[in-house]
This record gives sequence, structure tokens and C-alpha cells, in this order.
Amino acid sequence: MTGSPSPLKLKLQILCGDAIAMGPGKADLLEAIATEGSISGAGRKLGMSYRRAWQLVDLMNRCWCAPLVETSPGSARGGGARLTADGQDVLTTYRTLQAALETRAAGPELAMLQAKLRPRALRSQAERLDEAAED
Amino acid sequence: MTGSPSPLKLKLQILCGDAIAMGPGKADLLEAIATEGSISGAGRKLGMSYRRAWQLVDLMNRCWCAPLVETSPGSARGGGARLTADGQDVLTTYRTLQAALETRAAGPELAMLQAKLRPRALRSQAERLDEAAED
Repeated sequence: MTGSPSPLKLKLQILCGDAIAMGPGKADLLEAIATEGSISGAGRKLGMSYRRAWQLVDLMNRCWCAPLVETSPGSARGGGARLTADGQDVLTTYRTLQAALETRAAGPELAMLQAKLRPRALRSQAERLDEAAED
Repeated sequence: MTGSPSPLKLKLQILCGDAIAMGPGKADLLEAIATEGSISGAGRKLGMSYRRAWQLVDLMNRCWCAPLVETSPGSARGGGARLTADGQDVLTTYRTLQAALETRAAGPELAMLQAKLRPRALRSQAERLDEAAED
């Protein structure tokens, strides 16, 4: 392996029928809910609308046997939210699996690919023409 | 593990700067070029426009140190194309890495997640209302 950053991007999704029950964005949202203590705060932290954050939480809660997030009883928009024990379990397990796959991926196959890869893509013909036009 | 199909979806991308040098769609395209013998035939097989298939090939050829696909000299649209030795190498290595990751993923963490997952998502409130309106 060289010292250059890994060119690998690994996206792990857990499907529930056609729905994505867990993935990188939902895991980040769960983490933000745990630290911010609310869905609105988590959305703000991630630059996501309250509506979008709420929709993702709602979908997660419908995909898993038990809800992953619970909101404080009677709380309106901006009220408190926290991960349930199942929510914390699913998040931890997802992160563990992700880390294990990233460790496995950093093996001989990746080194072989990396050795053949340019540090960045050559410019396309259109880009070269654009640049010539700017001269 | 239960006998139900795996809920895992693993997307492996190899980046070259900001560009995706290899991923599921590009690997499928390389395979189709190898079997169909042309970029246009590969595009047809995958339900992809010739323009789109050509753009993906062009991007791959700009991301890797050596081209992955070579076209027959002087061939116009629909002319022959085949994988170079590097193209075959990159494709094989990518598929090997993908299979190794899928094998690694089918472990205890996935079983733990699968045990907590519904077979399909509960309907949302909007879907329940739509259904009631259809009654």
C-alpha cells in the first residue's frame, strides 16, 4: 500500500423489502439524535430539514421490529428524542459491520487496484476545449 | 441466520479524486463489453444509451493509468470494442473484492440486524389514509 488516501468508498445498506432500513445517512442521523437529544437538533446538525429528519426516523421505526427512536410524550416540534435500547444496538452493530468491512477491504485487492489508478482523472476532451477557449 | 434472503446491499466504489473509477454499474458495463464486443451492444444489453455507455467508458479510461477498453481502429459508432488486459484485471479484482466483502458481511453482525428487522416496512400513516380512502 502507498501512503496516499484510500480510494475506497463502501456503502452498506440494510434493506427491509424495498425500503432502506439502515444506511450511512440514517446511521449519522441516529448518532446526531443521541448527541443532540432531539430530531430537530439532529437535523440542524446535519444540515437536513426537520421534515426530512422526521421522515427518516419514521421510516426506520417502520422497518425494525421495535422503534429505534422515541420522542418525549406530548412533545411538539423540537421536543426531545432519544435512541431506544434497540436503536443503540442497531447503530452499534451497523458501525461494527461497517468497520469490519473497511478493514477487510484494505487488503491485497485494493492495493492492486490502487497501483493502477491515477491520482486524479485526466481531463475530458470537453474540459480541454473549455480550457483552450479561456486562454 | 434465517432462511430469508439477505437484507444486505453493499456498494463498492473506487474513487479517482472526485470521479468514480469503478463501481457496480461500470463493472457491469465492462462485463457487457466483453461479451457483446462493442460499446453500443453493451449499452443495448444494459438498457443504457450509446452516449451514456460511451461516457462511462471515457471516464474509466481517464481514471486508470492504462485504458480499460479499446475500440477497433477506425471504427465508427457501433464498431468493435474489447477489454484490455488491464481492463480484465481491474474487473476481476473488483469482483473478487466485492465477493470477499459479501462473504465477510454475512457474519454475526448481519444475523443480529436481520433478527431485529421486519420482513417489510409497516405502512406509513399517509399510506394507511390512502388505503382507507379507497375503501
